[in-house]
Amino acid sequence: MVAPLKVGIAGLGTVGAEVVRLIEHQSRLMAERCGRPVRVAAVTARSKAKKRDLDLRGIAWARNPLELAENPEIDCLVELIGGSGEPALSAIEAALKSGKSVVTANKALIARHGLRLAKAAETHGAALNFEAAVGAAIPIVKTLREGLAATGINRVYGILNGTCNYILTRMEQEGLSFAECLKDAQRLGYAEADPSFDVDGHDTAQKLAILASLAFGTKVAQSAVYVEGISSIAPEDLRAAAELGYRVKLLGVAVRTAKGIEQRVHPTMVPKSSSIAQVMGVTNAATIDGEGIPPITLVGPGAGGAATASAVLADIADVARGIRTQPFGRPVDRLRATEKAPMERHEGGYYIRLMARDLPGTAAAIATRLAEQKISIESIVQRHMNGVDAARTAGKASPVPVILITYATHEDAVHRALQAVQRDKVITGRPQVIRIEKN
Amino acid sequence: MVAPLKVGIAGLGTVGAEVVRLIEHQSRLMAERCGRPVRVAAVTARSKAKKRDLDLRGIAWARNPLELAENPEIDCLVELIGGSGEPALSAIEAALKSGKSVVTANKALIARHGLRLAKAAETHGAALNFEAAVGAAIPIVKTLREGLAATGINRVYGILNGTCNYILTRMEQEGLSFAECLKDAQRLGYAEADPSFDVDGHDTAQKLAILASLAFGTKVAQSAVYVEGISSIAPEDLRAAAELGYRVKLLGVAVRTAKGIEQRVHPTMVPKSSSIAQVMGVTNAATIDGEGIPPITLVGPGAGGAATASAVLADIADVARGIRTQPFGRPVDRLRATEKAPMERHEGGYYIRLMARDLPGTAAAIATRLAEQKISIESIVQRHMNGVDAARTAGKASPVPVILITYATHEDAVHRALQAVQRDKVITGRPQVIRIEKN
Repeated sequence: MVAPLKVGIAGLGTVGAEVVRLIEHQSRLMAERCGRPVRVAAVTARSKAKKRDLDLRGIAWARNPLELAENPEIDCLVELIGGSGEPALSAIEAALKSGKSVVTANKALIARHGLRLAKAAETHGAALNFEAAVGAAIPIVKTLREGLAATGINRVYGILNGTCNYILTRMEQEGLSFAECLKDAQRLGYAEADPSFDVDGHDTAQKLAILASLAFGTKVAQSAVYVEGISSIAPEDLRAAAELGYRVKLLGVAVRTAKGIEQRVHPTMVPKSSSIAQVMGVTNAATIDGEGIPPITLVGPGAGGAATASAVLADIADVARGIRTQPFGRPVDRLRATEKAPMERHEGGYYIRLMARDLPGTAAAIATRLAEQKISIESIVQRHMNGVDAARTAGKASPVPVILITYATHEDAVHRALQAVQRDKVITGRPQVIRIEKN
Repeated sequence: MVAPLKVGIAGLGTVGAEVVRLIEHQSRLMAERCGRPVRVAAVTARSKAKKRDLDLRGIAWARNPLELAENPEIDCLVELIGGSGEPALSAIEAALKSGKSVVTANKALIARHGLRLAKAAETHGAALNFEAAVGAAIPIVKTLREGLAATGINRVYGILNGTCNYILTRMEQEGLSFAECLKDAQRLGYAEADPSFDVDGHDTAQKLAILASLAFGTKVAQSAVYVEGISSIAPEDLRAAAELGYRVKLLGVAVRTAKGIEQRVHPTMVPKSSSIAQVMGVTNAATIDGEGIPPITLVGPGAGGAATASAVLADIADVARGIRTQPFGRPVDRLRATEKAPMERHEGGYYIRLMARDLPGTAAAIATRLAEQKISIESIVQRHMNGVDAARTAGKASPVPVILITYATHEDAVHRALQAVQRDKVITGRPQVIRIEKN
């Protein structure tokens, strides 16, 4: 009989409690799959007294995460406390320094201190597994780290935040505003009371930084990610997108360009026919473009107790089997620094929505300013009217929405053209600009 | 410097040549990812003289696969010969018996001799990796074996044959017949001169048997799979499916039922909103329903030299890293035998297309026969007409198509009802019956 893997679990929230339950429930399956039993030897949480639907008999209680990490009776620390700093950080470091492997679902911590922790894991021959940190049960970390181990990656992009995708889906399907859908998401528990971490794109940015590191060998750094949230998206944009054959998604995109690795999070128009465009509601997805092969897309639950626990258990199973893959798939010293993507040099197609004034020559003025910047128009939609000039002829006073899709151009060219259009006073309000990502 | 992993490659067809090329091209990436270099030490193929766009200088040539497998200069045999028997079988066995790990893309061999080979791998502490055998670059084997290692699986199903999906996509999008689309597929190189292995479902069945073993711990056995191909599908079926909110796909389905593991391959109606329904053309996909978690779907290229080579290289990388996961995810002795699914006991919804005779009482007769078998109708479409009886009133002579979608029932009930309908002589020709798979 091989010795069991003794696991210590820090954090008994929704995920932690589910992990304790599943290790018991799946004990036979895990023993078969790992060649040795896995058992929970010790746990810790903020309150020992709190009522939990958990049978903790025979399991030691550590007074704090650090004590748990240093307990010689455990082989593997499972960190499910969350937060980008203490007490998770010190506990994980202590565990790694004593050669114990670590499994964590903590994206914030990995995005912030991943390098330092990976170095400690490398030095002490321990595993640092974090499948659950990105896309929960979707095996995106393993796919980049192992499944495509020897395939050059050109781009990885995905819907990495269920809250934003839920809001955009509701907005599109029901024509509701961002604010209305956010309120619903909060009521249903899909969004926090302070939703900014999700809707402003920071959650996606943390996950993207981790994926970029795995895909491209960059040093994981949230600061290298350009971030824009979804609060500026209007139902009109989603309607226009649909008419033009697109959907709007909050994407995290990491892409190899001639100027280096570009990491960015922003609302994005994706072709309706793409796999990523089909992903609705709280579901997450990631697409990987490997060198010379068609895209691979992984779709599934990106959050939730059971889905997160599923990934945590898989990581524990790898530890039990003795697998010690490098945390970011390469030696830490080989990871390269990247700078934040200079978005003014971003190259791609753009969706532009303008409110054109009811004046003679408006359409010509807009077209001229775009042409001056060498921006070619792929398509143009003028809503409710046959044309801007028609609106004037009809004697209407209210501005007319004009929607443009450009061919690939540079972002600074778009900005210069729109500044000129604004100076011409042929539009009212601020233009809406959404980047297009082709598949 | 850690010693390199020395690889021997048997078979230099499209995939084999690409593997040789990629190991050279990605040598730096592989060394970084694996902690040691990987190099091709020896190769073999049917003809040494054949012109290949490959630089084989410095690589030994073995006279045959067995000699390659027994070459003490190689650590890992990569079998890319294909075929369910010799010479691949003996070469793999010889390699495993001498403790060498094996990587193969050979689904036919794994479906037929997988158990015996896995046992040899287990006995000799070698790896037997076959990610490329199912879904090429889609990491479905790794996901079932490792990514969901501790998650109970309820169902795994997928589009595992690009030829069939290409044909069904063309038929649906262009209203063409099966025969026309097959001819096109052959012209484009998506289908073989003898297409029966693909279009009759046998290729899918081999892959499904492998996935079922990984998911449910069944003994891999193609003979346990019920198989039906796509040649009976008519453009009318695809049109009717679309109207009713479905698409027709050739699915391989392995599902846990009260009566055991059901493995089946057949044309299937899937809800248009499901991830699997979005998969068009030669693309493959697999969906996994884990206990208590929403479905996970993996989409990507299921064939092609580069996509297959990508998976082969990932498997080699795992060998280089020293990973020795059990081939079917569990000890071979724990795998359980399964019988072929008794389809007459299959439970599910059904699509039924009948050509109803232009006679009074036809609709009533059909409805009565279904009701006698306690089959409830979810929806009914009578094409071109407002109703069967209306057709009679209008004095038309030609039969009227009637399309029914049933609620979940047993397959034998459907057969009994349709036999009764045929005895009633209210329909012409054979009824078309397609099983529905809900997501």
